[in-house]
Amino acid sequence: MPPPLDGIVVLDLTHVLAGPFAATQLADFGALVIKVERPGTGDDTRAFPPFKDGESAYFAALNHGKRSIALDLKAPADRAIFERLLARADILLENFRPGAMEGLGYGWADLSARFPRLIYGAVSGFGHTGPEAGKPAYDMVVQARGGVMSITGEEGGPPVRVGASIGDVVAGMYMVQGLLAALYARDHSGRGAKIDVSMLDAQIAIQEHSLAITTATGTPPGPTGARHPTITPFSTFRASDGFFVIAAGNDAIFARLCTALGQPELARDPRFATNAARCEHVHILKRLIESETLARPRAHWIATLEAHGVPTGRVQTMAEALADPQVLARNMVLPIAAPPGRPAFVAAGNPVKMTGLDEPSERAPAPLLDGDRAWVLDWLAGRESHQPDAP
Amino acid sequence: MPPPLDGIVVLDLTHVLAGPFAATQLADFGALVIKVERPGTGDDTRAFPPFKDGESAYFAALNHGKRSIALDLKAPADRAIFERLLARADILLENFRPGAMEGLGYGWADLSARFPRLIYGAVSGFGHTGPEAGKPAYDMVVQARGGVMSITGEEGGPPVRVGASIGDVVAGMYMVQGLLAALYARDHSGRGAKIDVSMLDAQIAIQEHSLAITTATGTPPGPTGARHPTITPFSTFRASDGFFVIAAGNDAIFARLCTALGQPELARDPRFATNAARCEHVHILKRLIESETLARPRAHWIATLEAHGVPTGRVQTMAEALADPQVLARNMVLPIAAPPGRPAFVAAGNPVKMTGLDEPSERAPAPLLDGDRAWVLDWLAGRESHQPDAP
Repeated sequence: MPPPLDGIVVLDLTHVLAGPFAATQLADFGALVIKVERPGTGDDTRAFPPFKDGESAYFAALNHGKRSIALDLKAPADRAIFERLLARADILLENFRPGAMEGLGYGWADLSARFPRLIYGAVSGFGHTGPEAGKPAYDMVVQARGGVMSITGEEGGPPVRVGASIGDVVAGMYMVQGLLAALYARDHSGRGAKIDVSMLDAQIAIQEHSLAITTATGTPPGPTGARHPTITPFSTFRASDGFFVIAAGNDAIFARLCTALGQPELARDPRFATNAARCEHVHILKRLIESETLARPRAHWIATLEAHGVPTGRVQTMAEALADPQVLARNMVLPIAAPPGRPAFVAAGNPVKMTGLDEPSERAPAPLLDGDRAWVLDWLAGRESHQPDAP
Repeated sequence: MPPPLDGIVVLDLTHVLAGPFAATQLADFGALVIKVERPGTGDDTRAFPPFKDGESAYFAALNHGKRSIALDLKAPADRAIFERLLARADILLENFRPGAMEGLGYGWADLSARFPRLIYGAVSGFGHTGPEAGKPAYDMVVQARGGVMSITGEEGGPPVRVGASIGDVVAGMYMVQGLLAALYARDHSGRGAKIDVSMLDAQIAIQEHSLAITTATGTPPGPTGARHPTITPFSTFRASDGFFVIAAGNDAIFARLCTALGQPELARDPRFATNAARCEHVHILKRLIESETLARPRAHWIATLEAHGVPTGRVQTMAEALADPQVLARNMVLPIAAPPGRPAFVAAGNPVKMTGLDEPSERAPAPLLDGDRAWVLDWLAGRESHQPDAP
């Protein structure tokens, strides 16, 4: 069974994170992704640390399995190549500042007139409409404006950035959804579509409880450290050797937790009888629980709590997460094949496990800048099969 | 032009967050989503605060535009209805504990044999394979195990939960990608597919820089408060009336920032001449910048910095974010229509703006539990059009 996007050609004009992250997912689904880069320097993230033998581990982990050609989209000869690519492409993806494509003569109005089946995806900081369309943004700007920093951090403390770059990543994920929906629709309509995803919009869309609380009560929530704002106990706790979480989502789980801790009477204490009461007495309950948990290591508590059916888990560093047996069993940590003379890197696996999509044992390497120029020109001339072997 | 998923029927057996979030996005793309709920209580989140007139704002914001029928999947009469629905469905989505569907006789092996075109999506804490398949998980458990809490929080401080429920949300988003890829592929193969998304896997997949740093250097990053780990200055700063961010992604932006602050000589100081030098002197640089910014309000600095081409923005509460002119101009805050006798709520708009997908001025309401039983039975009997008006 071929992969779901077998035969689909993606022209990837994107750089840094939101766009490349989206294009990589399309490659994971089986599309041929041709990364069109600026001559000389290419994608900015080729210069992002950390490096191995002069190559960026960051770029490698985000761009595996793509082809690269460097094109100057202001030079006539390169524009001619680009337009031959457009005629073969199903999807064009870019994350320039709004207006940049129009400046090159490749705005949506021109593209859709010349290539009516082309699907055009644009990821930007604030979108292609609205009073601030055209302004630049970085991940942190939309984390700040979108509200997530205001609910992340210690209770009463200053705002904290989400450690993962969710300002970029979730925008890239929404773009993939739009592109796939447009591919499906094109088989029925015969027409492409433009998809316009704003990083700021995407931040609003993922904040379910903060939006519900703010709009229903008029009072926005603040940060609550490592605990859930409306469920108790649902937070980190200290064991003798580090942090772990207990997630007691209802009264039955709380009762089992008290038994597991050797304090069954806590479940009958009126201060802790309901979730509402536990939320009111959250700090004293935390001290009572930690008076038990601090005495023994995490492994003890996790085994004990799991035996009692209480959701729990270690707070892991990324090194621990990448060595987690369940993560490894799911094929989520993959070596990137190292061609002769190039360094070995590691990438995340594809979190979408589906029928027809084989689980690889390694990733194809990220391309060198302009490293596939000859291959791409051959392919355009019909001297290569449509879907190449992994580069 | 019809919406991209016009005519697609989704049976939504999901509850709480990851699954309902995914099903709602399919409704946003134009699918008919029939929520199949447990009789009596329905989706747990119908009981999640905050409430208005006895209805949950949380449930409303996550389930707008769906139909609801309550079915006891162990009772023969209800199973018969469910199987008639399966025969009409394109997609079945569930987020039970792995094995639950097999226990009901609706595991993938049975479903695909009887309904070969059915696409079956399962979201779970740890996935349907691996040593911990079958264990329950909540958002916070996978935030902890997946590593994101270890890189979120104050420098040197304890791990902090990401304020938005990204453990659930990004898993739901990956599920939507898988379902859409399978819909596209089905038009070519004639066959459905099973999609298995694990919340823990999804956490690994979104942590690009943490994975790259950990695997390339052997040392996992820790939390860095409100600043980017490898770019400086790229963090929050205090103005006289609150926090804002400055994101100086390269030397040119840093030089413009220094000019905007009235301290052009900082750009020539060897301690701050390169990003690497600025990272080394990050704390002194922050004090020097705040010695200027603390003297005036955020509005002054944002206007000044934007005039100099420096990416910046306020750290906003959710109330401020939902009133942000750019957010409103993008139609990202939508009233939910209130039928007679029911309360009014608010939901996020659809962040995927695309050709063929009209931007609504309001959301259809979330269904009452079993509120569409008669409509669903009529529809099965062919007494309703395939695609109803908004409920």
